[in-house]
Amino acid sequence: MSLRTLLLRNLLRQSRITNFAPVVLQNKSYSRNEKYNWNSKRNTAITLLASVVVGSAIKDDQKENTKSDIVEAGEKRPDLPTYRAEEVSKHDSKKSFWVIYRHGVYDVTSFLPTHPGGEQILNAGGLSIEPFWNVYGMHKTKEIYEILESYRIGNLHDDDVADHSDDELWAKEPFRDKRLIVKTAKPFNAEIPPKLQVEHFNTPNELFYVRQHMPVPDINENEHKLTVTIVGKNTTVKEFTMKDLDKFKPVTLNAALMCAGNRRSEMNKVKPVKGLSWTTGAISNAEWRGVALRDLLAHCGLDPDHLDDLDGKHVILTGADTDATGAQFSTSLPLRQALDTVLLATRMNGEPLPPDHGRPLRAVVPCAPAVRSVKWLQSITISTEESSSHWHLKDYRAFNPSKTWETADFSTAPPVYSLPVTSAICDPEDGDTVQVKNGHIEVKGYAYSGGGAKVLRVDVSADGGRSWREARLRTDAAPPARHYAWALWAVEVPARGDRQMEIWVKATDSNFNTQPEKFEDIWNIRGILGNAYHKIKINLKY
Amino acid sequence: MSLRTLLLRNLLRQSRITNFAPVVLQNKSYSRNEKYNWNSKRNTAITLLASVVVGSAIKDDQKENTKSDIVEAGEKRPDLPTYRAEEVSKHDSKKSFWVIYRHGVYDVTSFLPTHPGGEQILNAGGLSIEPFWNVYGMHKTKEIYEILESYRIGNLHDDDVADHSDDELWAKEPFRDKRLIVKTAKPFNAEIPPKLQVEHFNTPNELFYVRQHMPVPDINENEHKLTVTIVGKNTTVKEFTMKDLDKFKPVTLNAALMCAGNRRSEMNKVKPVKGLSWTTGAISNAEWRGVALRDLLAHCGLDPDHLDDLDGKHVILTGADTDATGAQFSTSLPLRQALDTVLLATRMNGEPLPPDHGRPLRAVVPCAPAVRSVKWLQSITISTEESSSHWHLKDYRAFNPSKTWETADFSTAPPVYSLPVTSAICDPEDGDTVQVKNGHIEVKGYAYSGGGAKVLRVDVSADGGRSWREARLRTDAAPPARHYAWALWAVEVPARGDRQMEIWVKATDSNFNTQPEKFEDIWNIRGILGNAYHKIKINLKY
Repeated sequence: MSLRTLLLRNLLRQSRITNFAPVVLQNKSYSRNEKYNWNSKRNTAITLLASVVVGSAIKDDQKENTKSDIVEAGEKRPDLPTYRAEEVSKHDSKKSFWVIYRHGVYDVTSFLPTHPGGEQILNAGGLSIEPFWNVYGMHKTKEIYEILESYRIGNLHDDDVADHSDDELWAKEPFRDKRLIVKTAKPFNAEIPPKLQVEHFNTPNELFYVRQHMPVPDINENEHKLTVTIVGKNTTVKEFTMKDLDKFKPVTLNAALMCAGNRRSEMNKVKPVKGLSWTTGAISNAEWRGVALRDLLAHCGLDPDHLDDLDGKHVILTGADTDATGAQFSTSLPLRQALDTVLLATRMNGEPLPPDHGRPLRAVVPCAPAVRSVKWLQSITISTEESSSHWHLKDYRAFNPSKTWETADFSTAPPVYSLPVTSAICDPEDGDTVQVKNGHIEVKGYAYSGGGAKVLRVDVSADGGRSWREARLRTDAAPPARHYAWALWAVEVPARGDRQMEIWVKATDSNFNTQPEKFEDIWNIRGILGNAYHKIKINLKY
Repeated sequence: MSLRTLLLRNLLRQSRITNFAPVVLQNKSYSRNEKYNWNSKRNTAITLLASVVVGSAIKDDQKENTKSDIVEAGEKRPDLPTYRAEEVSKHDSKKSFWVIYRHGVYDVTSFLPTHPGGEQILNAGGLSIEPFWNVYGMHKTKEIYEILESYRIGNLHDDDVADHSDDELWAKEPFRDKRLIVKTAKPFNAEIPPKLQVEHFNTPNELFYVRQHMPVPDINENEHKLTVTIVGKNTTVKEFTMKDLDKFKPVTLNAALMCAGNRRSEMNKVKPVKGLSWTTGAISNAEWRGVALRDLLAHCGLDPDHLDDLDGKHVILTGADTDATGAQFSTSLPLRQALDTVLLATRMNGEPLPPDHGRPLRAVVPCAPAVRSVKWLQSITISTEESSSHWHLKDYRAFNPSKTWETADFSTAPPVYSLPVTSAICDPEDGDTVQVKNGHIEVKGYAYSGGGAKVLRVDVSADGGRSWREARLRTDAAPPARHYAWALWAVEVPARGDRQMEIWVKATDSNFNTQPEKFEDIWNIRGILGNAYHKIKINLKY
């Protein structure tokens, strides 16, 4: 085992990470799961968690592994005993926990507490981990294969070896524009290149940043139904087809969507965090069109002015994308906020929603982390409970810089339903060489604030904060306190002979909140809400 | 003239300050003004602007001047010519501008452009400045008398010397609790001592911080009327007595009021700013009770759901407090914000409004700078125009740190209708010596955010930001996005043998906005919105 892998394994042992709720397995016979066909041979993967935890020691997370790495893991080893699947399947508890990978049988009992994905691993007790790794492709790296092999105890009997292919699983992924900067391939996560980001106020659909948790579901629009359940003394359930939704008054809103982890890579430089290593490209803006949630719920009999305990209720949104256990993506938000802001969108920038962005129907929750804007929307439930999914309960919560994975309590931390003010320089990019014209260079970027606030002012400094220049702003004409779009900005910065320049940007929003100078004081274990000043260094030529 | 005064005069000449709109004088015969009796001899004063501009060079603005200072200015000087009042009164234009002070006649033509109060000075052309200085008591300091005397050209004829006393003007000022920390006496501005600030969630009325612009009007509650004007095709005007207002459904809200300049003294340390040198005591919290503005306007026929151009309208609030020209205090805010948040309050913490806090009626505009919460409310006007008062047009607007009085354009800068997240340490205070008990000290303070946001978390550091401890919070139970009260916090900080400790605090609000670390990047000419970390240094004993 390489030193790097040994280091990773020790780190995993030390960091007791439980960022997923336990998922109780309903049916352990995956070969009978009608949703996925496990029977094909090709595997590809990119690590995620490992590379983030170990930082620069791990290969760039955008490279795919070579064939030789794949051959090493799960190969038959004549020096080891052979086990039947039935025997392996008995070892499915925390006291003795075995798994299968291709020809290999592994005793990972001592590894369980250090699994970064938490107790999700328990679903694989006594079974092959391949179907799970087909969904959670970030496992498929040399380093993780090496860790796996360190727990090898034997071979699976030839008659029990199954072919778990992910061909079918990922066969229906939509076409993606080659200009997108890919962070992970399966699931697909990609950001928009900075210079393209500021070319249009409304980001073209094919360039809108993409964040998936799982494969993109392929939905037949003519058969798709949205179920609305209002829990109460007399619980009501109503179903809507896409044609039914077309009958409602169409509402348009111009809104940005931003991942809570946008700019995480900058926070990661201070101290490693867990999550996708977004730079500044996990935000885009569009004109959305559809039905106001408020109108749909009114049709279902929900009258906010005469509702008991309005502030104690939540809107649970569930999508059609599912993980290996069949669990559907789900999250929730407070009812009051949902009534005020949520659009059930069918169109994006004048076109039907693309598959990557939720076709045929998604929630658009302005001003909140985009995780709340559930795609491929299947159901809406009004309840006194929040969503019980692990994505909702064990993630998207913020802590102070001193909280660790051991001391952070996700169950008591408030969920993130809003976003602080942020901004970024998109053109030029860090490291660029820029031609000075007439003693100036032009600098462009974006700014954005959640909670309905508007960006009021953007200031740029090229002298370490000693002086600031106010940028020209381009914003949407939405009313105050209901401002959902981003702002694009541009400013001329004088260049007087220096060969290099460091440029800072900061935005002030309509509540006069502004950004912290550095990431140290806002660092948090999940690397979210990173809104310190964006700073770049460029070279100048005259 | 002392060096200090010379310095001040030069600074004033260099800084062309026009932070007040021109006020056209209606009636120059002040002796006939029925509101004030000028005929008495006593003068007292505290400087304001001068001490702030020159910073530490000027005496502490809380001390009253000695009698010897007063004797120097305006005394008869046998070496100079004598003028009749009629002659002086002809010199009332920018080409030749004379004023009177006691026995002195002064040609201040060349001083006009540098008057920090802007063109307000034009009202005194050819007249005595004493009535004006009786209202704007911040002029009455040794330094300003010296500047005045440097423009001396003669004596006023004995027969024309009048006695302008401010006894009557300030005779009806309410009784003030001696524990308040006075910044200026006339008008009265005082902050609450830090340790008292955190004793009660709702600040006792007698300790609530006080900010006056002018003398406190003495209003007969039984005769007081509130006029509501809705400007439109058919402008409507309605009058309400206090008894009329009692008939509306009472509404209660718990809200903090904070001066936009709270913590200005900390910003002033970076670079001098103009304004009252508040420390952390210009914020308090109370339970307010009265009539919702929305309900009153509905009664007057205003239906927000069927109103043209809701977002283009403003609510102009006018109070009964007036300046020397008779102009009443006035400001405005956007109609939508007003409908959502404004209370017309008659009671404060269960008692009728005290005189200092607006008896019998005031606006309470939560989440906004307290200047918008007009006291002694006399009229409400719904209009497409903002208030035209100088307090509204030429103040309470924010700029980046590089804007100067010359380059800052108040007419295009957006008004401040909200407040960013802030926090302060109240107990212990800076410089205290604290007894360590069981290896800890207890630290307490407040936190607050405008725009309806709730304080979510307060973190304290005693090691320069390397580690942070989360404080216990006490907040109000208001619904999200409509959170108007402050939060009080407390935390135990370990003390392990150090003799000194520097403590920092920062708050995070429900939009996950947090505070900038230092004042440099948020500095602005008026010293408002100063929400960088509050930091104190204390001594420890064991």
